Amino acid sequence: MTQLSKNRIKYIRSLELKKHRNADGVFIAEGPKLIEDLLGKFDCTFIAGTTSWIKEHPGIKADEIIEVTQDELSRISLLKAPQQVLGIFKQPDYSFSTDVLKNELCIGLDDVQDPGNLGTIIRLADWFGIENIFCSQGTADAFNPKTIQATMGAIARVKIHYTPLKELIGKADKINVYGTFLEGENIYNEKLANNGLLIMGNEGKGISKELEQLITKKLYIPNYPMDRGTSESLNVAVATAIACAEFRRQASC
Amino acid sequence: MTQLSKNRIKYIRSLELKKHRNADGVFIAEGPKLIEDLLGKFDCTFIAGTTSWIKEHPGIKADEIIEVTQDELSRISLLKAPQQVLGIFKQPDYSFSTDVLKNELCIGLDDVQDPGNLGTIIRLADWFGIENIFCSQGTADAFNPKTIQATMGAIARVKIHYTPLKELIGKADKINVYGTFLEGENIYNEKLANNGLLIMGNEGKGISKELEQLITKKLYIPNYPMDRGTSESLNVAVATAIACAEFRRQASC
Repeated sequence: MTQLSKNRIKYIRSLELKKHRNADGVFIAEGPKLIEDLLGKFDCTFIAGTTSWIKEHPGIKADEIIEVTQDELSRISLLKAPQQVLGIFKQPDYSFSTDVLKNELCIGLDDVQDPGNLGTIIRLADWFGIENIFCSQGTADAFNPKTIQATMGAIARVKIHYTPLKELIGKADKINVYGTFLEGENIYNEKLANNGLLIMGNEGKGISKELEQLITKKLYIPNYPMDRGTSESLNVAVATAIACAEFRRQASC
Repeated sequence: MTQLSKNRIKYIRSLELKKHRNADGVFIAEGPKLIEDLLGKFDCTFIAGTTSWIKEHPGIKADEIIEVTQDELSRISLLKAPQQVLGIFKQPDYSFSTDVLKNELCIGLDDVQDPGNLGTIIRLADWFGIENIFCSQGTADAFNPKTIQATMGAIARVKIHYTPLKELIGKADKINVYGTFLEGENIYNEKLANNGLLIMGNEGKGISKELEQLITKKLYIPNYPMDRGTSESLNVAVATAIACAEFRRQASC
């Protein structure tokens, strides 16, 4: 075991920024539950754990393991309340075939910008057995520490692909492309397929015009009472959750 | 119009803390959309707006209105990206009768701790026409700036009451009390009433044992595929959204 040098502390904290993460192709994660989900799924380059955490986790495979005091952990942690262990992992590099859009329900995110929203969406995708999320280049980075923490470990099970969505849909021949809109069809009146791409839009602007043209079925999540006029909308993670729940409810019937 | 003094800046920023908000019974809100939703609903004690915002909003009723530069706005703003206007409003003081639980669907929050989750829940309650949310004393403060911003204006339409939930249920005779659990009944197989209290639990601990005993129907949001074992859960705002959507879907059938 080695020491936690000043340079090391500086390096770890630098990983809050995407450019530093991508320079080394790594990401940072914290807390026992999350670290346990990630170990064995992604290559671990570094672990800093409290004495008790290290003792409870013998045989961990990481390039480097450092035992730290609670005080040292606070100095490297990005959390308000540091939790026993912090790790650095290699970012996975997934390939995909467009066949996945014919065979499974996938999510497409069109410039979802908030890291917390992205993490919540990854978490709920895991709950609903959605294994692939396609993100436009303008979507938040899935390896942002806020996103990683919000996934609660789902990042180990859901594959995130960054790719232009327009070209993705173009390459995948004749797939179902769904999107939620304020002026779509009531989602509960539609027969939803169990495959294709469900596109969710940016927090402020919604789905871009360019992608809107490629959507084969516009869906609307009805408010209540339904005749009540509203200029309001739902948070994008909340709308994704309600839509995914309905896709899966219909698939389970 | 008066100047933005150092003391004033200090006072505004102090409202990030609950004790300072409660000392004056006020809360802080930012951004044109939110401020417009709040004006006319709550008494406004203070507005700091950019020249263009002030010009576009003549006749605003506030105890004090100050015109600020973008730079001055940055100094009082709690947001990373300050947005044209910041306001201070009086916290509303709502009364309620337990009859509301017989006549309407209400949400009960049992120690939901994250201000963002609370704000998201208030926002989706508004979408689903839920007008009253009862919060345990351990629930985050609805007037936390993070909560207020996350409501996107719904705080102007949904009434938040802080009251011990056990006593609330005790006072309301024979009401439907729902809660979501990992080992409840599949929500899609249940006939859901259009009134009563839907209780959602703390992010880590779920619904307390004390309240669990008072629940008349335990609900489960099925994952997918349903035979897949899971130790995972959904974010509390996401679970609230899916449950509320199903209550309202059944009510609209």
